[in-house]
Amino acid sequence: MNDRLVLGGHEFQSRLILGSGKFSLAMTQAVIKHGEVEMVTLALRRANVGGEENILEYIPEGITILPNTSGARNAEEAVRIARLAREIGCGSFIKLEVIHDSKYLLPDNYETVKATEILAKEGFLVMPYMYPDLNAARELVNAGAVSVMPLGAPIGSNKGLCTKEFIRILVEEIDLPIIVDAGIGRPSQACEAMEMGVAAVMCNTAIATAGDVAQMARAFKQAVEAGRAAYLAGLGRVLDGRAEASSPLTGFLEEC
Amino acid sequence: MNDRLVLGGHEFQSRLILGSGKFSLAMTQAVIKHGEVEMVTLALRRANVGGEENILEYIPEGITILPNTSGARNAEEAVRIARLAREIGCGSFIKLEVIHDSKYLLPDNYETVKATEILAKEGFLVMPYMYPDLNAARELVNAGAVSVMPLGAPIGSNKGLCTKEFIRILVEEIDLPIIVDAGIGRPSQACEAMEMGVAAVMCNTAIATAGDVAQMARAFKQAVEAGRAAYLAGLGRVLDGRAEASSPLTGFLEEC
Amino acid sequence: MNDRLVLGGHEFQSRLILGSGKFSLAMTQAVIKHGEVEMVTLALRRANVGGEENILEYIPEGITILPNTSGARNAEEAVRIARLAREIGCGSFIKLEVIHDSKYLLPDNYETVKATEILAKEGFLVMPYMYPDLNAARELVNAGAVSVMPLGAPIGSNKGLCTKEFIRILVEEIDLPIIVDAGIGRPSQACEAMEMGVAAVMCNTAIATAGDVAQMARAFKQAVEAGRAAYLAGLGRVLDGRAEASSPLTGFLEEC
Amino acid sequence: MNDRLVLGGHEFQSRLILGSGKFSLAMTQAVIKHGEVEMVTLALRRANVGGEENILEYIPEGITILPNTSGARNAEEAVRIARLAREIGCGSFIKLEVIHDSKYLLPDNYETVKATEILAKEGFLVMPYMYPDLNAARELVNAGAVSVMPLGAPIGSNKGLCTKEFIRILVEEIDLPIIVDAGIGRPSQACEAMEMGVAAVMCNTAIATAGDVAQMARAFKQAVEAGRAAYLAGLGRVLDGRAEASSPLTGFLEEC
Repeated sequence: MNDRLVLGGHEFQSRLILGSGKFSLAMTQAVIKHGEVEMVTLALRRANVGGEENILEYIPEGITILPNTSGARNAEEAVRIARLAREIGCGSFIKLEVIHDSKYLLPDNYETVKATEILAKEGFLVMPYMYPDLNAARELVNAGAVSVMPLGAPIGSNKGLCTKEFIRILVEEIDLPIIVDAGIGRPSQACEAMEMGVAAVMCNTAIATAGDVAQMARAFKQAVEAGRAAYLAGLGRVLDGRAEASSPLTGFLEEC
Repeated sequence: MNDRLVLGGHEFQSRLILGSGKFSLAMTQAVIKHGEVEMVTLALRRANVGGEENILEYIPEGITILPNTSGARNAEEAVRIARLAREIGCGSFIKLEVIHDSKYLLPDNYETVKATEILAKEGFLVMPYMYPDLNAARELVNAGAVSVMPLGAPIGSNKGLCTKEFIRILVEEIDLPIIVDAGIGRPSQACEAMEMGVAAVMCNTAIATAGDVAQMARAFKQAVEAGRAAYLAGLGRVLDGRAEASSPLTGFLEEC
Repeated sequence: MNDRLVLGGHEFQSRLILGSGKFSLAMTQAVIKHGEVEMVTLALRRANVGGEENILEYIPEGITILPNTSGARNAEEAVRIARLAREIGCGSFIKLEVIHDSKYLLPDNYETVKATEILAKEGFLVMPYMYPDLNAARELVNAGAVSVMPLGAPIGSNKGLCTKEFIRILVEEIDLPIIVDAGIGRPSQACEAMEMGVAAVMCNTAIATAGDVAQMARAFKQAVEAGRAAYLAGLGRVLDGRAEASSPLTGFLEEC
Repeated sequence: MNDRLVLGGHEFQSRLILGSGKFSLAMTQAVIKHGEVEMVTLALRRANVGGEENILEYIPEGITILPNTSGARNAEEAVRIARLAREIGCGSFIKLEVIHDSKYLLPDNYETVKATEILAKEGFLVMPYMYPDLNAARELVNAGAVSVMPLGAPIGSNKGLCTKEFIRILVEEIDLPIIVDAGIGRPSQACEAMEMGVAAVMCNTAIATAGDVAQMARAFKQAVEAGRAAYLAGLGRVLDGRAEASSPLTGFLEEC
């Protein structure tokens, strides 16, 4: 089967994107390996720490770096960080985050659209983190984003798909890959998102806060693949208000 | 990792049990292969159909047959079917189903306990389908069952884990493998059951009603493995009422 | 409208039954008043405490006492408590509780059926607390119960309608008033139970643990009435996958 | 108790706002009466139909008219409709709706903020329908709105509180009355919204599609009051993973 995730012309086999913010560098390597991840986010401050711990050296060959604009509170700051990231060799992908709410860390859709427009024109492959509002998603498409990354729940909350009804609408109405970007707390939730037709899932805290990080990375990898396969296979119907024998129960025993 | 499902002294690598009732024989083979299934249920009537379509010939080497007592409306009928199954060479495992409600196909816990007691004494490895009632589960343990198989939702409904709160109690309180046996409609639901510490999941309708049966079997296999891995890894905490930065957001941009 | 709850030939206007276990006697009076309650449970030990605090003197005229068999671990003990309750003047109603699980306080359906049979023959109006198992409910009907009281969630948990799918089945299949008896934690949950066609709701902990007990009693009263009215009115349809203008949106503005 | 809803300096006893779009004029009167409603929306086209059916004549004395901008696809159109409404005598309240998505009827937050700013400066009491995005809600506050009206689910869907997690955030963070404006399908959902601290609920389709419209109006009235009372009373705690006796179960029977 040749089912690939295509982002800005680049093809990926893996549909699990790793947020690296909560991991040590060595841990990041382990998660990449066990989760068979091909794309890893990177906060700029970690990229250019200088000294002996430059994260770029820790990222294995073949992994696509997805620098994020973490820390940006408006479009202008985000644009500045994105340009800096490209300058220091992080490539053209940029995960756009514009956040000025420090309690719920909810994205500012309006500033995000503005930054997307500027960065897309400069050749960036913009992957914007957003609040799943259909109108904002349409504007992100028009602004030149290569994917739309709605949140499932507040960042780091592990609360799951609280925005399910609206992500479903995005999947139906938006012609870009939809990637659920925050809130996914368990593999079953990642699986469910994929069953709904989401193109990929981004994960960070759920893996970072697990008891065994490498094993949880594997679990997410499999759950994402399972959900994708189920979406492609086509889910069965749900019965309402009764049961239906799965065994060939054409009659009770005596009548045999 | 040597994580095995142990049922009556027998070890299994797979934690996805296939209900075969809704499949043609050739289809059963395909699902066994793609789902990497090691245990398949069998309704007695299909076992001894005679003529060219004897299902036993279709079951690959190494697969454990789990004959069920489908059609039994009380303990006596179930016992009769179980003995017949053993006589015709289906082995010692028996999936006990006692159902006399034809609309919701809900199991009769009381008759099920009675039949379990009789069959366990005769050396059967009894796996009873049951309504997830803690008291009944305790009686099944005392009666000699090798596992307890609570329903998630009415058979064939694909409604999922409607009994979640009570399956969680069984997992905590019962010292036998808990296997969710009916209602699971999507891989994400199988994954969630496994995350809760269920030992295995049984699936039939969800695969049989999928668009692509083989692919859905693969999806269930992966989802079950993902849920198991997550359970073993230890799920992370869920935040209430706020977010938590996954990136090392020690300050906003200016303050760097 | 002459919509009454009929239990064993007795008519009630109120569909909110008060569990009194967690209240002081004075508080019980307040809740009865603000909740406009007509039936109140009573644990035997509180009835015959002797001395100055005899709860029977605190129950206002016109309130039906529903003694419960709290403390009974099997049918025999329950029968004994019920007879004692009648002897000391608590009337013919008996709320049957048989519980021997001290962590989740889940009822033993089997012993409950046995006790119901004995007590119904002795003329008691038996209202059995039960785990919502359709087969057990049918046996309670045959044993002569005047209502069936399934739990929504473990007693005192305030977790709500965790057994929703199965209470719905009881409402459909059982020809006695179904009364949700444990777990209801918020007025909205009581309202939802009533919308589903449940005949009454029993409440104790949700009111007892509220900040303002009298006000919460009023809230439950109204929520139960709202749910009943909605059930009688007939709920509207739920749309799937789109919206439908509520305003007469026959065209956008320009086209007027 | 002197608990009032205050909108733009006007006080209301009722916290159920009626959307009138789906009702005949006579029916609107019935719902106002049985739901004890004090505020009713009005689409402009219905206000000035001329001829014998002028809805303004049908609205009872003392009811506040809340004209909406239904049909507006951008801020400019909405402003135009609002001014027209005031000119023909609909007063200063305006329910702002800016929608250009014809399938899900989702509001355009950005245009809504723009229109709010203009209309608030002209002295309107602006009540904007919005997608529950915290950043947009903050801008509506700054723009001078007198309340914020997030949707629970797509208009007319009766799907309930699909945006629960985010409405909870608005209740916590926004210092204006939060009014849930679309999607509420059952009284229990209205009750739950009110329990969360929402200031009022708007209802239209759920009542219009009920079997008995007047009775459903009454049900919603009571459910809204129940939820408000529960919010003011303070909800009790939810137990996790066990039960807690509501009766004074200090010991089992023998130990008495």
